[in-house]
Amino acid sequence: MIEVFYPPKAEVLAYLTSPSTAAIPSRNARVTIKHGSLAEPVVVDYLVGPLPVGSSTEMTKLVDIYHRDTIPFNSRGPDAGYDWNVPQFFTKMVAPMVGVMQELLGGTGAGLPNDTLVTAGSGPFSFDGSFRRLWIGWRRNTAGRYLHPLNLFQYIDISGTDPSQWKLLKVVYNHQIFETVESFLESFYNGTLKRIPPIKDEDVDLSFSTRKRVGPQRDLDDLPGPRSLSFAGLRYRVNRELQFVSWMGWGLYLGFDRDMGLSLWDIRFLGERIIYQLAPQEALAQYAGNDPFQSTTAWLDRYFGMGKSVRDLLPGYDCPDEATFLPASTFTATGTFTREKGICIFEHDTGRPLTRHLGYDEAEFGAVKGYELVIRSISTVGNYDYRNCVVIVYMLWLIRDIKFDYIFHLDGTIEVRLSASGYLQAAFHDPTQGGYGNRIWETTMGSLHDHVINYKVDLDIAGLSNSLLKTELSQEEITQPWFNEDWGNTVIQQRVTREYISNESDAMLNFPVNFQGGYAIVNQEETNKWGTPRGYAIHPGYSPIHNTVVGSKRLLNNANWARYNLAVSRQKDSEPSSSSIWNFNLPKEPAVDFHRFFDGENITQEDLVAWVNVGMHHLPQSEDAPNTRTNTATSSFFLTPLNYFDYDVSIDSTNAILLKNPARPGDPFTYDNYGVEPAYCVPPAPAPFEYSPVQIFDLDGKLSPPATIEEMRKEAEGYHRIKLEL
Amino acid sequence: MIEVFYPPKAEVLAYLTSPSTAAIPSRNARVTIKHGSLAEPVVVDYLVGPLPVGSSTEMTKLVDIYHRDTIPFNSRGPDAGYDWNVPQFFTKMVAPMVGVMQELLGGTGAGLPNDTLVTAGSGPFSFDGSFRRLWIGWRRNTAGRYLHPLNLFQYIDISGTDPSQWKLLKVVYNHQIFETVESFLESFYNGTLKRIPPIKDEDVDLSFSTRKRVGPQRDLDDLPGPRSLSFAGLRYRVNRELQFVSWMGWGLYLGFDRDMGLSLWDIRFLGERIIYQLAPQEALAQYAGNDPFQSTTAWLDRYFGMGKSVRDLLPGYDCPDEATFLPASTFTATGTFTREKGICIFEHDTGRPLTRHLGYDEAEFGAVKGYELVIRSISTVGNYDYRNCVVIVYMLWLIRDIKFDYIFHLDGTIEVRLSASGYLQAAFHDPTQGGYGNRIWETTMGSLHDHVINYKVDLDIAGLSNSLLKTELSQEEITQPWFNEDWGNTVIQQRVTREYISNESDAMLNFPVNFQGGYAIVNQEETNKWGTPRGYAIHPGYSPIHNTVVGSKRLLNNANWARYNLAVSRQKDSEPSSSSIWNFNLPKEPAVDFHRFFDGENITQEDLVAWVNVGMHHLPQSEDAPNTRTNTATSSFFLTPLNYFDYDVSIDSTNAILLKNPARPGDPFTYDNYGVEPAYCVPPAPAPFEYSPVQIFDLDGKLSPPATIEEMRKEAEGYHRIKLEL
Repeated sequence: MIEVFYPPKAEVLAYLTSPSTAAIPSRNARVTIKHGSLAEPVVVDYLVGPLPVGSSTEMTKLVDIYHRDTIPFNSRGPDAGYDWNVPQFFTKMVAPMVGVMQELLGGTGAGLPNDTLVTAGSGPFSFDGSFRRLWIGWRRNTAGRYLHPLNLFQYIDISGTDPSQWKLLKVVYNHQIFETVESFLESFYNGTLKRIPPIKDEDVDLSFSTRKRVGPQRDLDDLPGPRSLSFAGLRYRVNRELQFVSWMGWGLYLGFDRDMGLSLWDIRFLGERIIYQLAPQEALAQYAGNDPFQSTTAWLDRYFGMGKSVRDLLPGYDCPDEATFLPASTFTATGTFTREKGICIFEHDTGRPLTRHLGYDEAEFGAVKGYELVIRSISTVGNYDYRNCVVIVYMLWLIRDIKFDYIFHLDGTIEVRLSASGYLQAAFHDPTQGGYGNRIWETTMGSLHDHVINYKVDLDIAGLSNSLLKTELSQEEITQPWFNEDWGNTVIQQRVTREYISNESDAMLNFPVNFQGGYAIVNQEETNKWGTPRGYAIHPGYSPIHNTVVGSKRLLNNANWARYNLAVSRQKDSEPSSSSIWNFNLPKEPAVDFHRFFDGENITQEDLVAWVNVGMHHLPQSEDAPNTRTNTATSSFFLTPLNYFDYDVSIDSTNAILLKNPARPGDPFTYDNYGVEPAYCVPPAPAPFEYSPVQIFDLDGKLSPPATIEEMRKEAEGYHRIKLEL
Repeated sequence: MIEVFYPPKAEVLAYLTSPSTAAIPSRNARVTIKHGSLAEPVVVDYLVGPLPVGSSTEMTKLVDIYHRDTIPFNSRGPDAGYDWNVPQFFTKMVAPMVGVMQELLGGTGAGLPNDTLVTAGSGPFSFDGSFRRLWIGWRRNTAGRYLHPLNLFQYIDISGTDPSQWKLLKVVYNHQIFETVESFLESFYNGTLKRIPPIKDEDVDLSFSTRKRVGPQRDLDDLPGPRSLSFAGLRYRVNRELQFVSWMGWGLYLGFDRDMGLSLWDIRFLGERIIYQLAPQEALAQYAGNDPFQSTTAWLDRYFGMGKSVRDLLPGYDCPDEATFLPASTFTATGTFTREKGICIFEHDTGRPLTRHLGYDEAEFGAVKGYELVIRSISTVGNYDYRNCVVIVYMLWLIRDIKFDYIFHLDGTIEVRLSASGYLQAAFHDPTQGGYGNRIWETTMGSLHDHVINYKVDLDIAGLSNSLLKTELSQEEITQPWFNEDWGNTVIQQRVTREYISNESDAMLNFPVNFQGGYAIVNQEETNKWGTPRGYAIHPGYSPIHNTVVGSKRLLNNANWARYNLAVSRQKDSEPSSSSIWNFNLPKEPAVDFHRFFDGENITQEDLVAWVNVGMHHLPQSEDAPNTRTNTATSSFFLTPLNYFDYDVSIDSTNAILLKNPARPGDPFTYDNYGVEPAYCVPPAPAPFEYSPVQIFDLDGKLSPPATIEEMRKEAEGYHRIKLEL
């Protein structure tokens, strides 16, 4: 892996402040090398710079940002061309089992031409790097295979660098446990194995797990629905070279990386920087179940690469037709993948006024239209698979389509919203599984799981010196002399208390019960016109949750950010992220231990970073098939001005109206629309729908067209699908 | 007041089931009569029917739906032509004070031509009907006067029917209390009164409280923003006579009444009734402060008439240009008020797919567009005022623009969303007020308050026999034989527990901490294909809060619904609403005591009603001026299928796309869009903006055009502005 290593914030700010006089921050790369041939193989991150390579370029070990020097090879990141596609994976783990698959699972095994079975692995693979092991479970190889799990599992050891040492540790079928393949086969053949007769593919309709439409067409659904059009032209500007976007007083730069995809930088509103960096950090998905697979799964999707998993957006479906699409590129060991429509930007009419009032005094009656700017990308995470010449064996994970939305409002508010669709990671349904989900098909259940996603929000409110304001709403009973005997002289009412949290270690926070209070980043030394410190609140939106499970060994120390709704720490270049690609396979001593950020430092009037979670407790239901619905599978938070301005600045909008009482009774009201009339020229024809494959550039930067559809698919899926060559 | 009295649910259902054979439910009216001339004057509700009036028509006391027989006159509902506009109100309460107003408040008092002062009253007016008293506080009479409170308050007694008995009980100025006007004036004249020098109008810019735009125009804001257009025609149907709306499998009837405005009836989706009645019930706003006015204010807006307060919507601003507008009518003692654009209906493209997935197997890759149907009305509540010939004295309340949205999704989900804008009920700022809000102008603070709004949701899930399912998510530590020594043989994971709450008295509920679980209405006897009881979940949306304050005397028993996130009771025709117009002034023994609905009855497989709250803890900030912003002042809940269907039925949508891998490498993907192409014909010109005054019909049903602008304004504001004739 080679990727840009972001320069120190101070250097960037100096340059942004005076680009003509300040030095351009030097460019450095983070380079990951897997030292697989060492006696004790390890993975090491290096810092290489300055770039381009010159006499002063150095390569040094990158240690500042990690809590350990090296990564054990057993805990390494994903790699094309290893593990699943070495012959031993098939010969040791799969081949001994194929003989019984037809009878136990209803699928074709070795030697048969139909590839009707598929396997998938659980994670993480390691606790501390001393081993690399996982459970694999079998599924039907049909469209939407994530919803077709079967009840055969194997625990396998793929530790080290010598596949000849790999071994199968356990076989579990229908809750029966065998330490060896031999004892399992013996039980199978001697008739002592308690079986559940498989459902044969031909006896059931497997299409429930596809997106094929079913049912009668609804009334008027033959017509296209309403479509948003900027008849007078787009009102935002995009500088493609600088990746700079501006709209209605907002300005920001886009970033993109392999680990977490789209990030936003130097977000300014009406000339002032509000946020230095807004970037997703990690996405946790932790499952439960009465089988060895679901009960051991705790994904951290940074490992898989949320950026690598960004796909081209579907124009007109994922984003409006008139959206602006921008490319997303990620670098791999074999070249660069570019998705021409990896990011979309569009202005959206919410259909709701942002403010409005009907009053009869002069200038009381009017409305400001509720426009928003949306910046979006969608990652489809998962879908490992590989193929061999005997039986199709896919390594696959659940598949999630995670929509990252950044929504900018006219008043200075940003809504950070995440929505999920895609397939569940389902489990084999039997009556013992009721405590872990709902049955959603003949033999399928949706398994209870939590999603928690962490964002870094490096707020700079009226400068770098910021404090964390905690507000609490409680009730008091007070006695006042002005009350009369009729009601009594005491009153029970609300009261607000404000407190600055001064120590980092006290800044790992949950929203209060009944949301009676909240948190804001404020600058105590910069007040608005009315003497109140200027601030931005971190305001809960949809589904403001944190992880349910605490203390799970599989997330022992590697996702501690998920325990809270939010946390606030000192900004440090040595704490650039709350997670790392290696956290997934190092729960015990992760490369980034979030709790170590909180070491008792003062956070009064310092440069602060808020780490904010969104998420969802997902108890699946029948309506999760075929795909989860984004309307309820959504979570968000708002970053919203809190006494930051002297008044609501959206009142400056000219897409607004002000009404005046008519001069004569019965006449319509007169009005001022600031000269902005709705346009209604002939719209341009919508572009024909087109969805093109990913563009791949080789290490020389040349476009390398795929040779075959199979190759194209392989490259489009990247490491998610590794073809096994026996 | 004369209004329809809804027939028993059983009669309506019988008719809806077989309209050709079942009897049409008889029509009855609820008639409120104020028996003001009795020795002990009371208010009584009568049931009059059947209608139209015939030989069998009777008038009987309506007692079934109330917890008391009569309403004390001191606790009566609002009435045009009483209280504020009898001469004694001015002569006793106001006249003695006007002499000192210029000096203390900076405004012109008696005898001066400029009407620069205004007064406003607190509420409720009574505890048990034994008195009728309120605090009045003074404000500048300028646009947005709600943001210009001053620091003079009077406690007045307007009990009974004889204004000659009315009296002023207290004067409070700058925290100093006087039992009589005389002692106050003495202190004023002898120089012992501690004064705060008033800010003179001419020394400050008062326009901060108007909607006049300020500031430079933002980049490209001279262009109109994007506009949603149904190029191929609207996809919903509206039967204006029946007030029936249908869209994409949904069908429902609209209702409208004086108390709470828009309601929805017999909501069906794909042929099955989901909801019999969905209707707002009451809106609470409870304030806090260190002055006698704010600390005693606890509004219940049903009193003021959320339906009566519905105003015409602003086409293109409150709803898209192409929305369908429907009239809203309310009856008063003087005639019928019809607002031609009181309700709007439109289809909205959310800009987000409802479901989508990118996969490489056949029929895995595609998206369903995220269309919604929105039904909206906006109530502007408040704004009592009256005028006399000496000094302009308005009785006014806070002003709230409350947007009721019902948002229907393709998958069977409804989002019930409420947004607030309009003016704050502000307070006079002094340093002792810090615990109750934020300063937002020179002498103005926004006062801490809670909004809680209750909805009745009469769900009928797969029939009338329903149960309340409580789901809890917790964590467990379990030991399993299949685990290895590497990770240890115990696992900490999530677990779901399900419980039917069988007793009404246990069904007053809060959402669990961290939203670990939830509530649903299910039919235990009707299961989906997978054996799970069919249900609808009540899923929290934005700001799922309940009231902060418990035990306040001003809300002692009259708003007990506000203590919870939701409650579930047996459906009863005798419990049609969680509140009443008289609850406001009867905190001790209200006409409807919500807690009395919960009397230990079985709620297993019974016809159930969910009472669900939305709301907001509003700690105002500078950005609440001039008007509160709807993006963060919003709250919602979802009613969403929970194992109701066998799969997600939105997959039937043909505004959708299904992609297929290309046949040749490098080619674009092929696709099926079900023949639905985006249309792009020449759009119709948007209708010119027009906003017309309310139409008023007299008691004979004839249109009565207003005679003067003053008259028009008076009638448009209804009882919110009562002109005093001295």
